[in-house]
Amino acid sequence: MHELVRRLYPLCRSITGDGVRRTLEIVGESIPLDVSEVPTGTEVLDWIVPKEWNIRDAYIKDVATGRRVVDFNESNLHVVGYSVPVPPTVLSLAELRGRLHTLPEQPDLIPYRTSYYKETWGFCLRHETLAGLPEGDYEVMIDSTLADGHLTYAEHVVPGRTDREVLVSCHVCHPSLANDNLAGIAVAVSLALRLKDPYHTYRFVFAPGTIGSITWLARNRERAAHKIAHGLVLACAGDRGSLTYKHSRRGDAEIDRAAAHVLRASGREHTVLPFSPYGYDERQYCSPGFNLPVGCMTRSTYAGYPEYHTSGDDPDFVSAEAMSDTLETCWEVFQVLERNRRYLNLSPYGEPQLGRRGLYGSLGGRSDTQRLQMAMLWVLNQSDGVSPDCALLDIAEKSGLPFDAVAEAARALAEAGLLKEIR
Amino acid sequence: MHELVRRLYPLCRSITGDGVRRTLEIVGESIPLDVSEVPTGTEVLDWIVPKEWNIRDAYIKDVATGRRVVDFNESNLHVVGYSVPVPPTVLSLAELRGRLHTLPEQPDLIPYRTSYYKETWGFCLRHETLAGLPEGDYEVMIDSTLADGHLTYAEHVVPGRTDREVLVSCHVCHPSLANDNLAGIAVAVSLALRLKDPYHTYRFVFAPGTIGSITWLARNRERAAHKIAHGLVLACAGDRGSLTYKHSRRGDAEIDRAAAHVLRASGREHTVLPFSPYGYDERQYCSPGFNLPVGCMTRSTYAGYPEYHTSGDDPDFVSAEAMSDTLETCWEVFQVLERNRRYLNLSPYGEPQLGRRGLYGSLGGRSDTQRLQMAMLWVLNQSDGVSPDCALLDIAEKSGLPFDAVAEAARALAEAGLLKEIR
Amino acid sequence: MHELVRRLYPLCRSITGDGVRRTLEIVGESIPLDVSEVPTGTEVLDWIVPKEWNIRDAYIKDVATGRRVVDFNESNLHVVGYSVPVPPTVLSLAELRGRLHTLPEQPDLIPYRTSYYKETWGFCLRHETLAGLPEGDYEVMIDSTLADGHLTYAEHVVPGRTDREVLVSCHVCHPSLANDNLAGIAVAVSLALRLKDPYHTYRFVFAPGTIGSITWLARNRERAAHKIAHGLVLACAGDRGSLTYKHSRRGDAEIDRAAAHVLRASGREHTVLPFSPYGYDERQYCSPGFNLPVGCMTRSTYAGYPEYHTSGDDPDFVSAEAMSDTLETCWEVFQVLERNRRYLNLSPYGEPQLGRRGLYGSLGGRSDTQRLQMAMLWVLNQSDGVSPDCALLDIAEKSGLPFDAVAEAARALAEAGLLKEIR
Repeated sequence: MHELVRRLYPLCRSITGDGVRRTLEIVGESIPLDVSEVPTGTEVLDWIVPKEWNIRDAYIKDVATGRRVVDFNESNLHVVGYSVPVPPTVLSLAELRGRLHTLPEQPDLIPYRTSYYKETWGFCLRHETLAGLPEGDYEVMIDSTLADGHLTYAEHVVPGRTDREVLVSCHVCHPSLANDNLAGIAVAVSLALRLKDPYHTYRFVFAPGTIGSITWLARNRERAAHKIAHGLVLACAGDRGSLTYKHSRRGDAEIDRAAAHVLRASGREHTVLPFSPYGYDERQYCSPGFNLPVGCMTRSTYAGYPEYHTSGDDPDFVSAEAMSDTLETCWEVFQVLERNRRYLNLSPYGEPQLGRRGLYGSLGGRSDTQRLQMAMLWVLNQSDGVSPDCALLDIAEKSGLPFDAVAEAARALAEAGLLKEIR
Repeated sequence: MHELVRRLYPLCRSITGDGVRRTLEIVGESIPLDVSEVPTGTEVLDWIVPKEWNIRDAYIKDVATGRRVVDFNESNLHVVGYSVPVPPTVLSLAELRGRLHTLPEQPDLIPYRTSYYKETWGFCLRHETLAGLPEGDYEVMIDSTLADGHLTYAEHVVPGRTDREVLVSCHVCHPSLANDNLAGIAVAVSLALRLKDPYHTYRFVFAPGTIGSITWLARNRERAAHKIAHGLVLACAGDRGSLTYKHSRRGDAEIDRAAAHVLRASGREHTVLPFSPYGYDERQYCSPGFNLPVGCMTRSTYAGYPEYHTSGDDPDFVSAEAMSDTLETCWEVFQVLERNRRYLNLSPYGEPQLGRRGLYGSLGGRSDTQRLQMAMLWVLNQSDGVSPDCALLDIAEKSGLPFDAVAEAARALAEAGLLKEIR
Repeated sequence: MHELVRRLYPLCRSITGDGVRRTLEIVGESIPLDVSEVPTGTEVLDWIVPKEWNIRDAYIKDVATGRRVVDFNESNLHVVGYSVPVPPTVLSLAELRGRLHTLPEQPDLIPYRTSYYKETWGFCLRHETLAGLPEGDYEVMIDSTLADGHLTYAEHVVPGRTDREVLVSCHVCHPSLANDNLAGIAVAVSLALRLKDPYHTYRFVFAPGTIGSITWLARNRERAAHKIAHGLVLACAGDRGSLTYKHSRRGDAEIDRAAAHVLRASGREHTVLPFSPYGYDERQYCSPGFNLPVGCMTRSTYAGYPEYHTSGDDPDFVSAEAMSDTLETCWEVFQVLERNRRYLNLSPYGEPQLGRRGLYGSLGGRSDTQRLQMAMLWVLNQSDGVSPDCALLDIAEKSGLPFDAVAEAARALAEAGLLKEIR
């Protein structure tokens, strides 16, 4: 995954333009993508697809020395995203200052700034660079285009045995920022590659943040209303912080409970946050009109680390181990979704005699009871077919047993004819 | 407010009589009052209006010296409330003892005692006074009358844009006790003076404790059943303790949640208590037949301070700052009640584009988001028109934002045509 | 109770056989029992009544010395329960080892082992005994019979004023183990002796664990479905640990709340556990088909002490004080069940005037209010006839008052005509 992050890193992505297209081409080398191009001006929900932005070069040149003191080629973060074209123009430093964005408290980092919906231009630079600039004249130039074009997003679908879908959504609009969200993209690709004949249909959406998920929702209203059973926004998937799951707006959706269960059962440090209408594209999926059961899996939280939206979020900021950990955790969550079923105990009066079915140790009186036997007792006891909370995940939570043990117990009991799946 | 407390302090109030009448006259100088006189013998709910009690003088005189050792003129607490008339009578100290009430553990304080419904008489005095009395003969005299008359209470109404009422109830039956309840009366008067063209109709009831609120309820059954939307019993409003709110019997009435929210949002020490059927007149308002949404706001709790029901509860025991703090807190609670509404998000699919409506900072990518913008996102996200808990106060509680910010966000969004009020 | 424990201790009980019969004869000397004999082969729910097992003698003899190194006469725990007959047979220690059960970490204790449903044989011995055995030849012999016969259980019924039953169930299948469950049997006998003209009908079931309760359930399906209102499995009733109550599967059954209330109100250390489908016969009573409101009262929990299922659980391990404490606690729980009723306040508008009914101290103004008066206010306030949670136990829990005070208040109020019982 780290290789994919490093390869995608230099591209200058934005909410539209060739950076996104090239990113999707590279992702498409690993998993086939269905790419959509939506024209500028298209109405999408309350929004309108904006003009397409592309950029080739930009700089601030010290007129005195002819040296580029800020150079787009060094880092695409140097230009405020969606900056309008600026022909070579000489300005005094005093005149220029209002166009310059720095982080005085993190003087060695370039901030990431955009202005999608108000036409302007500007540069982002290290505060220490700005501090070292002599007064005098500077030539600025931005070789960009902002014109009618398209918004680009892509989907990859792994068909399942049911048309109920699990949505995995990654934003692809950030330029050279590794954790946010190249790591998320890389984990999503690995998840897609690992899925083989799943129960659910898995839909991976790679789209620009906000306007991209809004565009997808606008074009998938029926799917959103009737097919999306579970969903996960995947972001900040590679930093060295522990995992964070943020609940969907519903708060008790199956994805919420599955994610919380997997994190809790891991025994490792983690954070589970309630829903809030701020953050990544769960904002859109969880808007009240859609109210989809879509949570958000990150490591450090949205805006929750000093390198967030700065040049400090580079490929060294993310680790292969962290991405692998995010991958495995998401995979476990998917495995819960895949196997979470409700069963009916077909022998509900008293315990069935597990011993004669080979399901129970025959030598009684021992105080150490195996976990699988406990899981069988729990599944039998709870699978009454009437309680609203008698699916395997409910039983795992009530019993404190890992979902795996409960699912395995249910499998063994169903095989022995003691359970049948309901609904 | 402190001035009003000092002016009302010397009057000898009881559950009936001229002390209450004079108190209401003085209150009436600030806010117009509608005074009711209910005749002795009137049946009110399960009770009967008692005889009216008035007192002019009372003493215990040392026969040996002719000196008044206990004198009503020094403190009206010296006589057990509702004491029957006693002509000048000489008794030995031994004979007298059964009529004397003291506080052995607070020897310098006079206790406050009454006997409304059992005809008797007695004196209250400092334990140190009693301890210093030589054996010998004493002349006692109580110049009181207990005869058919009236129970007096008063109302002040601030009409609102709706006939749904907020009830504010203060007991006016305690003689020279400042915190309990002259401070409550003073705060109520200030609240009444501050209300200008409110949404709700505000009804201030000044009535003797228990029998007074019972009488008011007996004569306002229709109003209680159909008009009282919220209510607050106001007592012990001036001591230096932190604020206490006691829930209504309903436990989750809007007044309960508004008061708890305001206290929590204040960030200051406070106490929120569950309902109990003991305390002030919330006992009557929250009796199961009425079950009104009436909580109780005090500083120190009912009977919860050493000076409670003693001569220690004098005008110096209450402070202007404390009364002012109670006033402001009640006012804030009222402001929540006034503005707590449910709205419907008219653009519920995805987030509406706040930027083009001037409601959102246009320069993206910054991690510091303003509170008002957060409040707008919360209001939009939660105002789905179907959840039972999507009023602004619910949203304030879920989001952790102050009610003010949420209400201001709703106002701005409604103005922009993104919300409409429902119901 | 300790005497009964000591008398029952030497008998070799199992899930069938003469040890159980003799145990029930002895219990029958204190309380009349209705004994049932259910033939081998009878189908009971998912199970079949097994062959009856009886044993007269068993040993392991050192061939070299002729000495019994393991002797059934010393402790009936020495033989694996339900061991098939073994004629005198000489085996080397190496051949014998697989038949020997010890506790290496508790080398001075004999473990308790059974094999009810897989025909085998074996011996249990102290690990230190095994460690001291020289290699060589040993003669083993088990003089048991495993043949068609009966499963035996017994019931004692105390008829009540209603046919709604309280079930008290004790397992009687363990050989020489005192806490598990001779102490439970002894406490049950004392409870039965103490009940005089109760409201509920009390049914005491003395049956072998698992198969016994399953047999009882199979033969009492109608009773289980329609008559059992509350139930308690009584086990481990005599060890020196504090009391433990384990909830029924329902979790909020009246017995669950009554037991938790009594334990909490005791102010003493105790444990309340959620339901789990493992433990004693509550496993069967709480199987989903029956789902009876049956909890489990123990001192130390199931399998929760080092002496559990070893020879360390002897009559000295249990104490008379502990059994008495268990008895009194169960009795208090029964008293809650007996008196927990719902009432309707017949004077629900305002507080009724308790004073003129002699129910309230007449001298007002005192801050110390008696507990009974508080209980009366709570009962009046909560007994609205509509809230689902207005039974006396609910009121005790809400008010924090002991159930006794609340019940006494309700009695006094009903007597004064202020309350009537509902439903």
